[in-house]
Amino acid sequence: MSESSSHPRPRPRAGATQSSTAIEAIKHYILKERLQPGDPLPTESQLCEALGVSRSSVREAVRTLVALDIVTVRHGHGMFVGDVSMRPMVESLVFRGLLKPGDDYRGLRDVVQVRMTLDEALAPEVAAAWRGRTSAELDDLVRRMESLAAAGRTFSAEDREFHSRLLEPLENKLFGHLTEAFWAIHTQTVPLLGAPTAEDIATTAHAHGAMLAAAEAGDVEAYRVATREHYAPLLTVLERV
Amino acid sequence: MSESSSHPRPRPRAGATQSSTAIEAIKHYILKERLQPGDPLPTESQLCEALGVSRSSVREAVRTLVALDIVTVRHGHGMFVGDVSMRPMVESLVFRGLLKPGDDYRGLRDVVQVRMTLDEALAPEVAAAWRGRTSAELDDLVRRMESLAAAGRTFSAEDREFHSRLLEPLENKLFGHLTEAFWAIHTQTVPLLGAPTAEDIATTAHAHGAMLAAAEAGDVEAYRVATREHYAPLLTVLERV
Repeated sequence: MSESSSHPRPRPRAGATQSSTAIEAIKHYILKERLQPGDPLPTESQLCEALGVSRSSVREAVRTLVALDIVTVRHGHGMFVGDVSMRPMVESLVFRGLLKPGDDYRGLRDVVQVRMTLDEALAPEVAAAWRGRTSAELDDLVRRMESLAAAGRTFSAEDREFHSRLLEPLENKLFGHLTEAFWAIHTQTVPLLGAPTAEDIATTAHAHGAMLAAAEAGDVEAYRVATREHYAPLLTVLERV
Repeated sequence: MSESSSHPRPRPRAGATQSSTAIEAIKHYILKERLQPGDPLPTESQLCEALGVSRSSVREAVRTLVALDIVTVRHGHGMFVGDVSMRPMVESLVFRGLLKPGDDYRGLRDVVQVRMTLDEALAPEVAAAWRGRTSAELDDLVRRMESLAAAGRTFSAEDREFHSRLLEPLENKLFGHLTEAFWAIHTQTVPLLGAPTAEDIATTAHAHGAMLAAAEAGDVEAYRVATREHYAPLLTVLERV
């Protein structure tokens, strides 16, 4: 079905062209005005007038920009600059990972390997950022993961917070955002594998403690070893299925 | 401006809810039917009927899915499963990188650092994949980059092809996709920095040759050194601005 099949088309694709012009124009406006996430945008009518395009083009453009998290609409309040988060990437990647579920979960294994590679590669930065420091919050998270594991329970909320806090002191925030994005993909697809064994849960909980200890000791090599230990149970499951 | 401000709203956000239901339903349909990129989707009318939602909700859902590259519309031919590419991520990240241009190009520096970290982290995989092999195409690309550099010219097409071919033999295709995505961000934002010096161009061209030689020798450490040499001119420029 074509978008234009529902009405005669004297100028085919004019709508699509107008809408991509409107997309570029709105992005340009945000940059030119040096707007930041959360800043308000003009109304739909103001945008139509300023950009010289139809209301339906502006509306289509806004919908695309919302999908990309560049614009957000708070109903009853107006349009604002979005968070420009990793959400669109996560949605695409989760879907991509699910697209070939018969294919031995290769999509998911690829994601886990990329996460592990990034985490291992960050060992020098993490060790430098944490060397000689301690964190009561991270200690507490490790203890909670270990007691949940002892009770045979999983701990995805604690897990996410642990990784996010561990990368927080890094100057380059993109690493944290990427890791969060991959974490999200990971947790949305891992349940497809079925429940992890009690042993795997315990190994993973323990590996978090080892990662933290290595970071606080500033020990790059120990951090790499703990990172591999952290992903080992999951990679083993993924090799098996 | 709110999407709903242009008309009275007896049931606020009903449209938004219907449209996100339609998004999930279309994604579910693609998975359930085990469709692959390029496979045709039902018509708009068929989807309205099958999902029990309005035509405008289906249209809104499709627009979002097109933005995420999960659906593609070929005008006059119909709707198809999209490539589920990294394009949405690239669009978001480019915009994110541009959002704070006054901020010392930190967004761009973050991207370059992530690229470098990924490339360095892949040294063992690249060395293992290429050890003992040679590639006439890669040799030729290096020679072309070197002669362009000697003429003081840049070589972004050759550069892209080089990195893409170098990661091609890796089993995990996600690394290649990520590198391509970061490459795209990189080249869309680098021109903001102004023309590189002839010396920087020459250093970068030479580093590609060193990366290839290290890969073919299966020398992990030499590959890491060449990777750092490859990014050094750009990182120096980014530190300076």
